[in-house]
Amino acid sequence: MIQEFLKTRTFTEDLCKPLQLEDFVVQPVEFVSPTKWHLAHTSWFFEVFILTKFNKEYELYKADYPYLFNSYYETKGNRMMKTDRGNLSRPSLQEIFNYRSYVTNALSNLLEFNPNHHELLSIVEIGIHHEKQHQELILMDLKYCFGHNPLFPIYEGSFDEQSSQEKNQDWHSIKEGLYKIGHHGKGFCYDNETEAHQVFLQEFKIRDGLVTNGEFIEFIEDGGYKDPLLWHAEAWDWIYAENINCPLYWRKMEEGWSEFALSGLKPLNLDHVLSHVSYYEAAAFAQWKGYRLPTEFEWEIAQDKFTWGKRWEWTESAYTPYPNYKKAAGALGEYNSKFMVNQKVLRGGSALTSSNHTSKTYRNFFHPHMRWQQSGVRLTK
Amino acid sequence: MIQEFLKTRTFTEDLCKPLQLEDFVVQPVEFVSPTKWHLAHTSWFFEVFILTKFNKEYELYKADYPYLFNSYYETKGNRMMKTDRGNLSRPSLQEIFNYRSYVTNALSNLLEFNPNHHELLSIVEIGIHHEKQHQELILMDLKYCFGHNPLFPIYEGSFDEQSSQEKNQDWHSIKEGLYKIGHHGKGFCYDNETEAHQVFLQEFKIRDGLVTNGEFIEFIEDGGYKDPLLWHAEAWDWIYAENINCPLYWRKMEEGWSEFALSGLKPLNLDHVLSHVSYYEAAAFAQWKGYRLPTEFEWEIAQDKFTWGKRWEWTESAYTPYPNYKKAAGALGEYNSKFMVNQKVLRGGSALTSSNHTSKTYRNFFHPHMRWQQSGVRLTK
Amino acid sequence: MIQEFLKTRTFTEDLCKPLQLEDFVVQPVEFVSPTKWHLAHTSWFFEVFILTKFNKEYELYKADYPYLFNSYYETKGNRMMKTDRGNLSRPSLQEIFNYRSYVTNALSNLLEFNPNHHELLSIVEIGIHHEKQHQELILMDLKYCFGHNPLFPIYEGSFDEQSSQEKNQDWHSIKEGLYKIGHHGKGFCYDNETEAHQVFLQEFKIRDGLVTNGEFIEFIEDGGYKDPLLWHAEAWDWIYAENINCPLYWRKMEEGWSEFALSGLKPLNLDHVLSHVSYYEAAAFAQWKGYRLPTEFEWEIAQDKFTWGKRWEWTESAYTPYPNYKKAAGALGEYNSKFMVNQKVLRGGSALTSSNHTSKTYRNFFHPHMRWQQSGVRLTK
Amino acid sequence: MIQEFLKTRTFTEDLCKPLQLEDFVVQPVEFVSPTKWHLAHTSWFFEVFILTKFNKEYELYKADYPYLFNSYYETKGNRMMKTDRGNLSRPSLQEIFNYRSYVTNALSNLLEFNPNHHELLSIVEIGIHHEKQHQELILMDLKYCFGHNPLFPIYEGSFDEQSSQEKNQDWHSIKEGLYKIGHHGKGFCYDNETEAHQVFLQEFKIRDGLVTNGEFIEFIEDGGYKDPLLWHAEAWDWIYAENINCPLYWRKMEEGWSEFALSGLKPLNLDHVLSHVSYYEAAAFAQWKGYRLPTEFEWEIAQDKFTWGKRWEWTESAYTPYPNYKKAAGALGEYNSKFMVNQKVLRGGSALTSSNHTSKTYRNFFHPHMRWQQSGVRLTK
Repeated sequence: MIQEFLKTRTFTEDLCKPLQLEDFVVQPVEFVSPTKWHLAHTSWFFEVFILTKFNKEYELYKADYPYLFNSYYETKGNRMMKTDRGNLSRPSLQEIFNYRSYVTNALSNLLEFNPNHHELLSIVEIGIHHEKQHQELILMDLKYCFGHNPLFPIYEGSFDEQSSQEKNQDWHSIKEGLYKIGHHGKGFCYDNETEAHQVFLQEFKIRDGLVTNGEFIEFIEDGGYKDPLLWHAEAWDWIYAENINCPLYWRKMEEGWSEFALSGLKPLNLDHVLSHVSYYEAAAFAQWKGYRLPTEFEWEIAQDKFTWGKRWEWTESAYTPYPNYKKAAGALGEYNSKFMVNQKVLRGGSALTSSNHTSKTYRNFFHPHMRWQQSGVRLTK
Repeated sequence: MIQEFLKTRTFTEDLCKPLQLEDFVVQPVEFVSPTKWHLAHTSWFFEVFILTKFNKEYELYKADYPYLFNSYYETKGNRMMKTDRGNLSRPSLQEIFNYRSYVTNALSNLLEFNPNHHELLSIVEIGIHHEKQHQELILMDLKYCFGHNPLFPIYEGSFDEQSSQEKNQDWHSIKEGLYKIGHHGKGFCYDNETEAHQVFLQEFKIRDGLVTNGEFIEFIEDGGYKDPLLWHAEAWDWIYAENINCPLYWRKMEEGWSEFALSGLKPLNLDHVLSHVSYYEAAAFAQWKGYRLPTEFEWEIAQDKFTWGKRWEWTESAYTPYPNYKKAAGALGEYNSKFMVNQKVLRGGSALTSSNHTSKTYRNFFHPHMRWQQSGVRLTK
Repeated sequence: MIQEFLKTRTFTEDLCKPLQLEDFVVQPVEFVSPTKWHLAHTSWFFEVFILTKFNKEYELYKADYPYLFNSYYETKGNRMMKTDRGNLSRPSLQEIFNYRSYVTNALSNLLEFNPNHHELLSIVEIGIHHEKQHQELILMDLKYCFGHNPLFPIYEGSFDEQSSQEKNQDWHSIKEGLYKIGHHGKGFCYDNETEAHQVFLQEFKIRDGLVTNGEFIEFIEDGGYKDPLLWHAEAWDWIYAENINCPLYWRKMEEGWSEFALSGLKPLNLDHVLSHVSYYEAAAFAQWKGYRLPTEFEWEIAQDKFTWGKRWEWTESAYTPYPNYKKAAGALGEYNSKFMVNQKVLRGGSALTSSNHTSKTYRNFFHPHMRWQQSGVRLTK
Repeated sequence: MIQEFLKTRTFTEDLCKPLQLEDFVVQPVEFVSPTKWHLAHTSWFFEVFILTKFNKEYELYKADYPYLFNSYYETKGNRMMKTDRGNLSRPSLQEIFNYRSYVTNALSNLLEFNPNHHELLSIVEIGIHHEKQHQELILMDLKYCFGHNPLFPIYEGSFDEQSSQEKNQDWHSIKEGLYKIGHHGKGFCYDNETEAHQVFLQEFKIRDGLVTNGEFIEFIEDGGYKDPLLWHAEAWDWIYAENINCPLYWRKMEEGWSEFALSGLKPLNLDHVLSHVSYYEAAAFAQWKGYRLPTEFEWEIAQDKFTWGKRWEWTESAYTPYPNYKKAAGALGEYNSKFMVNQKVLRGGSALTSSNHTSKTYRNFFHPHMRWQQSGVRLTK
């Protein structure tokens, strides 16, 4: 566990290597956080959920850091407004790295002296996965910052966001029947993946390959963004209010469509897998095509049939609790359950997802208009 | 069908009898519409979906009424902004009643001459149910207008909003198994109730009686509105932003709690059935009590076991399409499906619901923060 | 004074004769009030500033009316939010007329028994002028309601909003020198017109005739609304945000420009005097023409040279206190002085102004983007 | 002129020496700009108003910088939204310093080869004063960033914001009469200080010393922020909406009042000169004290009688053009005149003002609710 912990901490810091100092600071919109904040918040998590709890002599690195770096845990005291994260030039980046070292060392020591403390290990495991989630958020947020900067800075020229997907539009059939859903067996899972339970599915077909950029251009050229019958009412208001007419990182240039990626702004590749669309766009596209999105249960049952396409895949399922779901006691109960309304489940994992983080029962979730996560579309009928 | 049509039209007008002319005009918030508008919009529905379609010689009552009285049908042309409904003093109420008579007569004639026209009859049936929905909306909206007027005007002193519910807090058990869900058999249903399909349910228990005002006061007095662990994150933001601390029509007076009803402002009766709470409050209450809300499938399977309590009952289920759902072609396809995101299903029917309108498979839906519909809470475990 | 009082009360009611009952109720935007509210508020003014003060036995007509009909007097207790005025269907119009009669009678009696009470008479005079101001507001507000109703209802077919202005674009010269400004001599004036004081003016020229519709069309056709160099920075933001491209009641139809007036929607008459422009538009137009707006002092000194054009005329002067200005004690001190920031002075009087209300020293004031008052433009150089 | 230019450029860079790199980037509110942006914008000014105009062979440092660093000149092409200034991590600070050097060198060369080019020199002089204005803005903005950071970082421990004012509350009398106002004689001035003209003033008295913190605490303790009769209507709305109850940088701590300054957070010194109040607070305070604020003309005539107190002093005067004011042609005409509405004039100069920048005829201006400039209060009667 120590090794996994240290590896995770180091990997977070490795993600920062291509950055200039200024890149750690900015927050262009509320849902994006500065890299500096992610570095600190993931340390705060270990500090308040583990170090202060399991080591009575532990001293906070700084008394005011819990106020600065709590994200949304109401039961962990007051916190700065989310919109203020990008307004703080101090603590400096160097200070944050000192804070990280302090926490990493303290937790390593704690683990060394308590190698078999079951409760401790189980929360450390959550902390590690929590940090992996923020590793993906760091990349998502940097992509947003760079992709909305008129200079289109490059994060890393060789960063590959593509799927290895073969052009395969075959359909896999799944028979109707009772299936077991949710985490069972060994290995880590979040509370929202439990309890495992039976679900009855009607027969359905699901496509092997994810939707490509080329397919989505056909939708645009057919007037997809202008036909109200394809859209949910709230989606229609959204595309009007936000002036939406293409996926998030597409740009219409004189010479044709371009797409921004962490490796820079490049001509759009039609064979590449579509990404950064909202649920609204995914659903409108599917309807235009004559199909629909899968439910999260259909996805989970069919997932060993198709090739995962390195995108988070929108499902039709709302993010609600499984039968017999029990949320964790205390502040950790705020981790997942309080978001179980008004959001849609995404399944899979993206090119920005850290290794060993997602799984076939993992339930990611976002509001239906969000698209700065690397989301794609799988068709079902 | 003519009889049912005429009866429905007359009943709408009967609902207006207790009103003074000024009451037909006001729109205090966007989601409330003036009675005058409801009277006209229900006529517009028959005019544009039926009269102009099945009677080639039909002349619109006034050329600009479709612009004024279209609610949300993008495919039926431009329309006035929803927030402007309460800004129009003209057409006068008398003009609107003339419009109603004109449409009622024209449709009666059409039905008389086409007694067996299946498509016509089927859309008229939708139109009748559409008007019944607006009958409930008229009462909901008037309750909102009067309940937010510092003078607390009385709609009708004898209007009874109470349930006949016995104090019965027994629990009914439902076994796990495969159940059939959705409309099947004869009789009218909306497209969102189809197709009937099988659903596997875990074993659960559901309470016979709805939650009462007395039970909810215990929640308030125990600090329910102040404990963040009971609330969804968006709910917590909502109660803070809107300063929510009791159900919509409750008022804390010097002499204790009062509740506004269409029969006036009266001391709160603790034995009466709770109403006008949001999904957020329903879910927080259930969690505080150690229970949960039913899914819409659990509700539907159990509904013949318990006494209906004359409230729309919040379920945990998000409003999404049933398997193999097909939305209607053209503008009628906008009726239901475009709202299938970000809303919760309510089941049952309220003291304001028109007779012969709801059924055991009827799916009502509202955003989770809404509470001007007469919504209540049924507990499950 | 009794005669003037009764005449004023009656005239207010006469203004309502062309209305249908629904017209008394609506409030399409915050700055417009329902006629019903004006009828009540002008009665409230007499009730709280005079009747309760000078008649110890006076009983309020209804205990909750002061809450409903206070406009902005912080020192006169709580009041309903301004945006709620159009949300109240009750008290009914009939009730409001009863309220008016009650107040009119009570005040008549009070005056009859105190014919020489100087303080009483002086506040009654303010109350009469206050009601005259609201007579103009009733017409302004009805014009807004009707002019924004897609049916363009007519208030009164014979209502004449035009000036009798001859086409006279001569310039009058005023010599530099010391001039006396502000109210002096007999007759009523508001506190903001005092104290009379000397002002030194540079030489200037002022045009005899107000700007006409025809002149303003030239501005539009020359791209006046699209040249940022003509506009104040806040004006430029305003025309963009509100999509402003012509005066308030102009409509571009297929057959040319139309203008809405209380007598209905009619083809624009190029010789008529321009009205319903904001200060921003007035200033941009003047700059485009190579001139400027007068200061309020220039206007006051020159006003006996030119023909008044029945428009409120924008001046360049900000609404600030005169030297040695003393605001009234108590709540009446809120009447004028608390608005002495961020507003511009208008001089003159409009076709909607009640007789015997305005004068050569009267200082009207509005925010620079407002234009539902009948404002026009006089050029200076 | 070269010397003055180079000295100004260097001084701007000297102001940055106490900063850490992160401090150059953040923009906590719209009206505050990142230091990085100020460094670039002042270079942009020289580039587009001078270098591209007077040197035909000049090449822009980077083609997209004009888009990034234009502040508000509509006639100089498109520009980034003001709220986005703090969202850009690139160009990096190092790049901006390179840009500055490039521009500084190019302009030095240009001046060297055109030592007597009158038009060139006159715009360079404006550019120098423009940069001095931004020097003050840099300090104002850093003070805002640090003063709103929970860690209250120190800019420079020895930075002195205090006035040397003796406690002197004597009143100076000015006789009524005709006075000459506005810039005349030699030396630089902005267009808004012209033309010099005569103004007639009534007799008045003006206080020698500015209002102190101690005097303002009396206002607070007497309930000044809670008495609506002291406030303008818009001020009353503002203190409610923004929850204002003390000057901007005051903090009520357990041990008493503290004040944040560029030298850090320190106990409030009652003898120090009040700063960072809005016009609204200045006017309410003056009224509470039984006095008023001076007009800008009174200030200008009396300014050689009293000791300047190192604060920008609010006047009662609205920012409007002087008689016979002519704005500059082209884009430089946007510098001052387009802000001549809805703002108040401030006179004097602050402890953050660069040397040789302000003068007795200088007209500073801010919206009446603004208080991040170092504004104080001088009383008049």
